[in-house]
Amino acid sequence: MSLATYRKRLRRRWKKAGMEPGALVHMGEIPITPVEIHLIEYDDNTLIERDITGETDFRKYLETSKVSWINITGIHDFEKLTRLAHDFGIHPLVLEDIVNTDQRPKIDEFENTLYIVIRMLHMKEEPEAPYEIQSEQISMVLRENVLLTFQEREEDIFNPLRQRLRNRKGHIRRLGADYLAYALMDSVVDQYFRILESLGEQLETLNEELIRQPGPGALNRIHTLRNEIIYLRKSIWPLREVAGSLQRGTAFFITDATRLYLRDLHDHIIYIMDTVENYREVLSGMLDIYLSSISFHINSQMKVLSIFAALFLPLTFVTGIYGMNFEYMPGLGNPDGFWLTLGAMGIIAGTMVAFFWRKHWL
Amino acid sequence: MSLATYRKRLRRRWKKAGMEPGALVHMGEIPITPVEIHLIEYDDNTLIERDITGETDFRKYLETSKVSWINITGIHDFEKLTRLAHDFGIHPLVLEDIVNTDQRPKIDEFENTLYIVIRMLHMKEEPEAPYEIQSEQISMVLRENVLLTFQEREEDIFNPLRQRLRNRKGHIRRLGADYLAYALMDSVVDQYFRILESLGEQLETLNEELIRQPGPGALNRIHTLRNEIIYLRKSIWPLREVAGSLQRGTAFFITDATRLYLRDLHDHIIYIMDTVENYREVLSGMLDIYLSSISFHINSQMKVLSIFAALFLPLTFVTGIYGMNFEYMPGLGNPDGFWLTLGAMGIIAGTMVAFFWRKHWL
Amino acid sequence: MSLATYRKRLRRRWKKAGMEPGALVHMGEIPITPVEIHLIEYDDNTLIERDITGETDFRKYLETSKVSWINITGIHDFEKLTRLAHDFGIHPLVLEDIVNTDQRPKIDEFENTLYIVIRMLHMKEEPEAPYEIQSEQISMVLRENVLLTFQEREEDIFNPLRQRLRNRKGHIRRLGADYLAYALMDSVVDQYFRILESLGEQLETLNEELIRQPGPGALNRIHTLRNEIIYLRKSIWPLREVAGSLQRGTAFFITDATRLYLRDLHDHIIYIMDTVENYREVLSGMLDIYLSSISFHINSQMKVLSIFAALFLPLTFVTGIYGMNFEYMPGLGNPDGFWLTLGAMGIIAGTMVAFFWRKHWL
Amino acid sequence: MSLATYRKRLRRRWKKAGMEPGALVHMGEIPITPVEIHLIEYDDNTLIERDITGETDFRKYLETSKVSWINITGIHDFEKLTRLAHDFGIHPLVLEDIVNTDQRPKIDEFENTLYIVIRMLHMKEEPEAPYEIQSEQISMVLRENVLLTFQEREEDIFNPLRQRLRNRKGHIRRLGADYLAYALMDSVVDQYFRILESLGEQLETLNEELIRQPGPGALNRIHTLRNEIIYLRKSIWPLREVAGSLQRGTAFFITDATRLYLRDLHDHIIYIMDTVENYREVLSGMLDIYLSSISFHINSQMKVLSIFAALFLPLTFVTGIYGMNFEYMPGLGNPDGFWLTLGAMGIIAGTMVAFFWRKHWL
Amino acid sequence: MSLATYRKRLRRRWKKAGMEPGALVHMGEIPITPVEIHLIEYDDNTLIERDITGETDFRKYLETSKVSWINITGIHDFEKLTRLAHDFGIHPLVLEDIVNTDQRPKIDEFENTLYIVIRMLHMKEEPEAPYEIQSEQISMVLRENVLLTFQEREEDIFNPLRQRLRNRKGHIRRLGADYLAYALMDSVVDQYFRILESLGEQLETLNEELIRQPGPGALNRIHTLRNEIIYLRKSIWPLREVAGSLQRGTAFFITDATRLYLRDLHDHIIYIMDTVENYREVLSGMLDIYLSSISFHINSQMKVLSIFAALFLPLTFVTGIYGMNFEYMPGLGNPDGFWLTLGAMGIIAGTMVAFFWRKHWL
Repeated sequence: MSLATYRKRLRRRWKKAGMEPGALVHMGEIPITPVEIHLIEYDDNTLIERDITGETDFRKYLETSKVSWINITGIHDFEKLTRLAHDFGIHPLVLEDIVNTDQRPKIDEFENTLYIVIRMLHMKEEPEAPYEIQSEQISMVLRENVLLTFQEREEDIFNPLRQRLRNRKGHIRRLGADYLAYALMDSVVDQYFRILESLGEQLETLNEELIRQPGPGALNRIHTLRNEIIYLRKSIWPLREVAGSLQRGTAFFITDATRLYLRDLHDHIIYIMDTVENYREVLSGMLDIYLSSISFHINSQMKVLSIFAALFLPLTFVTGIYGMNFEYMPGLGNPDGFWLTLGAMGIIAGTMVAFFWRKHWL
Repeated sequence: MSLATYRKRLRRRWKKAGMEPGALVHMGEIPITPVEIHLIEYDDNTLIERDITGETDFRKYLETSKVSWINITGIHDFEKLTRLAHDFGIHPLVLEDIVNTDQRPKIDEFENTLYIVIRMLHMKEEPEAPYEIQSEQISMVLRENVLLTFQEREEDIFNPLRQRLRNRKGHIRRLGADYLAYALMDSVVDQYFRILESLGEQLETLNEELIRQPGPGALNRIHTLRNEIIYLRKSIWPLREVAGSLQRGTAFFITDATRLYLRDLHDHIIYIMDTVENYREVLSGMLDIYLSSISFHINSQMKVLSIFAALFLPLTFVTGIYGMNFEYMPGLGNPDGFWLTLGAMGIIAGTMVAFFWRKHWL
Repeated sequence: MSLATYRKRLRRRWKKAGMEPGALVHMGEIPITPVEIHLIEYDDNTLIERDITGETDFRKYLETSKVSWINITGIHDFEKLTRLAHDFGIHPLVLEDIVNTDQRPKIDEFENTLYIVIRMLHMKEEPEAPYEIQSEQISMVLRENVLLTFQEREEDIFNPLRQRLRNRKGHIRRLGADYLAYALMDSVVDQYFRILESLGEQLETLNEELIRQPGPGALNRIHTLRNEIIYLRKSIWPLREVAGSLQRGTAFFITDATRLYLRDLHDHIIYIMDTVENYREVLSGMLDIYLSSISFHINSQMKVLSIFAALFLPLTFVTGIYGMNFEYMPGLGNPDGFWLTLGAMGIIAGTMVAFFWRKHWL
Repeated sequence: MSLATYRKRLRRRWKKAGMEPGALVHMGEIPITPVEIHLIEYDDNTLIERDITGETDFRKYLETSKVSWINITGIHDFEKLTRLAHDFGIHPLVLEDIVNTDQRPKIDEFENTLYIVIRMLHMKEEPEAPYEIQSEQISMVLRENVLLTFQEREEDIFNPLRQRLRNRKGHIRRLGADYLAYALMDSVVDQYFRILESLGEQLETLNEELIRQPGPGALNRIHTLRNEIIYLRKSIWPLREVAGSLQRGTAFFITDATRLYLRDLHDHIIYIMDTVENYREVLSGMLDIYLSSISFHINSQMKVLSIFAALFLPLTFVTGIYGMNFEYMPGLGNPDGFWLTLGAMGIIAGTMVAFFWRKHWL
Repeated sequence: MSLATYRKRLRRRWKKAGMEPGALVHMGEIPITPVEIHLIEYDDNTLIERDITGETDFRKYLETSKVSWINITGIHDFEKLTRLAHDFGIHPLVLEDIVNTDQRPKIDEFENTLYIVIRMLHMKEEPEAPYEIQSEQISMVLRENVLLTFQEREEDIFNPLRQRLRNRKGHIRRLGADYLAYALMDSVVDQYFRILESLGEQLETLNEELIRQPGPGALNRIHTLRNEIIYLRKSIWPLREVAGSLQRGTAFFITDATRLYLRDLHDHIIYIMDTVENYREVLSGMLDIYLSSISFHINSQMKVLSIFAALFLPLTFVTGIYGMNFEYMPGLGNPDGFWLTLGAMGIIAGTMVAFFWRKHWL
């Protein structure tokens, strides 16, 4: 994430200074999209799926024994969201967090509700732009048999899951809303592997570039990748705690069966963290290599320079002596003078070469 | 914060060496401003607001069921402060901390009183001066239904809050002094986002400068920003503990409703810490880039130098040979001598170029 | 492990995104090898050994009082593995982990089953290839008197253990499946000492190379070894937790006798970790030495260069003066002019030498 | 503290190897000074002060209800100290620690006695010497109503405290021996602020020197200050634990009133640690600046060198060509030959300048 | 410890791969020395001392109320050791650890036995060899009133202790086997101070060398000392835990009196660790100084080089111009031509000097 993006987020935050905590504020840059609500209500035998467009009293979904998954796309119709929050007893602070989409991953436990924030990661897909990881906030409100999910934009990552629900494939229809929440988090975490693979590809390319032609361009790309990896680490690290506290947590509606799956999710996140840490160390090793290969180049250029200077500066000086125009100079009239001088120069050059040979510079 | 400011504070501290702990001392540099006391007394239905100028027995505010917010501006009239402290049963050590305004953020629990120190941050606003974050101490003494706040100077950051109290907007009038204390801390923390944004702006400018024209000026600004970020981190880090221990603490008059808001505040502080850490890493990456781009420049200058020296030193030597004034030199009389020599020089130059080509220096 | 290997693994992972957790997927690159099942059933007096080829109801092994060690080689016949898992009540997630052979070492506790993953390490044996540590996943499922082990390939590292079982040597026949699991882990950890020895050998060779002839080759090998050591650390570190939690764990079928052996194993792993950490520090010291010896070389070449330039540039300039062709130049006609000029050059050279002597450059 | 001082201490230590733990040994270098014992016995109403010269049975001070402060100056009369230790039931190991004055700050709890070691810090006051912090050990033995303090030398830092005792000023006379111990520790810690201020002054001077004239002198002073800061940190860090465990400790004779003061002391120590950490980071930033400003200088000298070499080497070569003495050279007889050659040289120079301009070297 | 020593140890380890845990193996390099057993049996009144040569039933020493100290020198007669182990109920794994003398310091608690490993440190005493710390393993098996100590070689470090036992000096005869074990550990730790002193001496010498004549020799010695300090830290760090867990441990036969002495031992170890850490930081500071002083030298040589090149290259070029042999050159016939040219060169030189003066290079 670039510094500019960071700054934009921070400005948005302090613009709210002085307002009531829990107040919902329209951020200028984001267009107000309509809220779309999609409902899937299911148990082992039946599955009802529909879009909710008009006004509904959502409280009925709390009282049925079926599992209801209510997916809300678009978070800028505050009136509708407030009504929804009221029906499900969502705390104003939670609603504020849902709307302010730069939360770090976290889990907040309320009396009979869990509020989970995770971040969906994408790669920026413009081909010429520098490598950049972008993220979208996925908020989940989990009650005993209801799961609410909030997305900023329509994304298709939950479609395979919907398909599994419709197909009665696997045990997803037999287990409750807690397993559904797990399955959604698992889908999101699975995307991280894709991000890691593309990062690894960047690292490989960079590594080859460093060997082929080290230069400031490579340095800048090391810098960019380093910032992206730091950002990635910041996004994933708290997720570990989220999965961990879900698994070990006290919420009564997380069943033991689901806890086993959450342990698996926890393992995946640790695997991802390990990879990210590994990338960080590889990248820092690349910087070391870059720096020391530059030093090595300076060294070998220095060697060439010193050898040529030490060889030719004395010789040129000797030619200079006999290039002087004094009338009376010894040896100028000597028929062998030229050859004697060349011989002397040969001896000087030989001494120099021997000197450099002994210093292992040749 | 500059080293000089640091030193001034330390001198003030040891000047007090040997005095009774809890003794209040006039620091020379600060003018003795009068103490102004502003009272807001409210419950859900009524709100009384007035300035307290004469002598008052403050103990009555402890016995009413309304919430009293007593804001004290100016901390140099020790007599008045001591009387106030006596009425509210404030420990002499707390009073000493209120007056010595370089405390780090902390929370001290007493039997039925909480003493909280937080730091309000500003940017120095003189346009030409180097970037510097300044801070002011806000002390809060919280009892069951009374909140005392102490400020060095009149600041307007609490005005939006006063307005909310007057407007009966939100639940601030329905909740107690604990929520009021939270709301004040939240106002202060909201200002941190502004500081972070301005820091981010500095980092962006610096980044561009490093790419455009790296030099000692940029280096000095890296150094300055680094010190400011270290200072910022030192100011915010203990705040995390303050919010955390308030939220999890045992003080009986912190209601569960307020604890939820304190959890939210805790999240904000962690978000700020994350950003500060991120800035630190970005800055340290910038220093790396600066250093390695200098190395790279040295390298490419070295290359130019070596090539020119290795090319022209031998050639000039050859011209020197035929510039000698010996009477008997072979070839001087040869009509093609000049062209043969030029040819030899061409071969030497070609060899050198081939050598550098193979070394990938060209 | 190279970046390319890493990337291949990651791609495999996200290819599974959207699938049911616990689903088994054929990875394209691995040929489907048949599953071979080898059984050793023993108690203190008897030992039965046979290959299981046809279909068997494995549940009978759970009900006997003898210890059964079922070693499964090959993990790509999912149908057979699923049947086996069903018989032994292995959770689908565990089976998924057995099949996806890039798990980090871990221990998962289920009600009456322990699932242990450790990694067997090899050195790549192609003589010309860069040094690379490869690893294979060994999965163990431990129940009260049954131990299942899963290997990707037939390896002979468990043969000494089988021999010990057949020989009735030592107490391995008297102790239960928990001791057998320990003994297998111990065999694997013993191989780590071999890896460490070969790594140490590489470090010694590298150290000598750095002293004899530092260059980019040495630098690249430092980089390679550094990545291998990082990878090794990542593989061994979680093993410490595995041994620790086995030893302190609550699983009822781990006897006190075995716990003593597990403490010993834990000590071995810490010894290995210590050695790895030591290697890391030695390697980072080598990089420091490499960098500073290059700086030192640059310094001494610089010295030679400066001395020659400072000595001969002024002298050559003097010869240049008397090489000019002005008609009226003082001293040209002087019979001692040549010698006086040589004398002046001698004085200049002497001054230079004295200057460098005082600067300790000679 | 210099390496030499360190070494002296270590030698003293191992000279004792093989002796009985608790054995008291005369260190050669320290002259045997007589032990001076000063007693202040007080309660809220009375205060008796006197020097104890002859033999006394100290046990009586344990049985009175007054508070007794027995200050022992000089620690080399082992016989007298042993008698004293016997009267107060001081463990031989504690007496050994009192006599070996290079302990790190610590607190040892015995059944009804606390043994506290803190270190008094001074700056070396010889004007020409390098900056060095020196320290003296203050040992305190605290029982319910008796405080013993041991000093190596007569120092006046406790005088203000004595004055406060005599004046009945503050509550020092009303509180017990535990408060007295706190007040002594507080006096010592107050002196640390002075040390920190002088360190800060050194840092400021150094910072200016680095900007004005960076050189090996500044580097050596960075090194010295760094070692002093490390030493300071080592002396203060354990003090934090001392204050913390006193405050939270279980000793029955530490009253709640004193615990509040100890919390304040704890805050002071954390403030000091923060400052020391800050100094460390500032100093490490200075080293970075020093190194990169040297690199920057090398870079700009390199630039000058390359430009001059690339400009004048080719030109001088051209002059060399026409300085050769061949009889048949084209153009020598051309009346415009000189000007044409000068023109060619101008074109070469112009090309070079253009080249450097495009490379941003000019 | 050198890399070669490390490697030898590792080879020995994996040579045992596949063997029964607890199996005793003859390491080729170590000659099989006879086992010598020395017994001291004492209580407050009596002391019996003798060498045990024949076969004995050691179990009787477990049943007496006296304290028995059985010191075994030589660990290669496995038969004798196994018999001894059997008599005292020593676990096979413990015996294996006694025989494999490269354990890290540790404490293993068994039901009624403690097994302690510490390492005795020596300096290599060959005068010309590089500085190297060597270590020997001391194993202790402590039961209620029996202490077994195992040494590889006859060393005299326990002699002072034997003398103290014989002399009835101090309380060593009144306290039990636990105090004896403490006293032995204390003797070993006392030797560490000697090692530290010699290390400090090396550091001082190195520091002087770095100031006098920095070169690759100094760099190598920094490297060697760094490795030794790392090794020292690895040997001592676990000792802290050993002393700590002995002191706080649950073993019933460690008396409260001895625990006080163990706390003292713990303090000594922390003092040693502090010193080692300090050395590490001093050494890393030395490396910084070395590197930056080389940079500084490069910088000042560069300055000299640039000044000479920038001064004389243009001047020599000017002489070259008037050295050309054109027939028609302006000014050659001018009687003042020579002086005018010299004047022009003076102006060029003056400009250069002014330029360097303004750049603070002169």
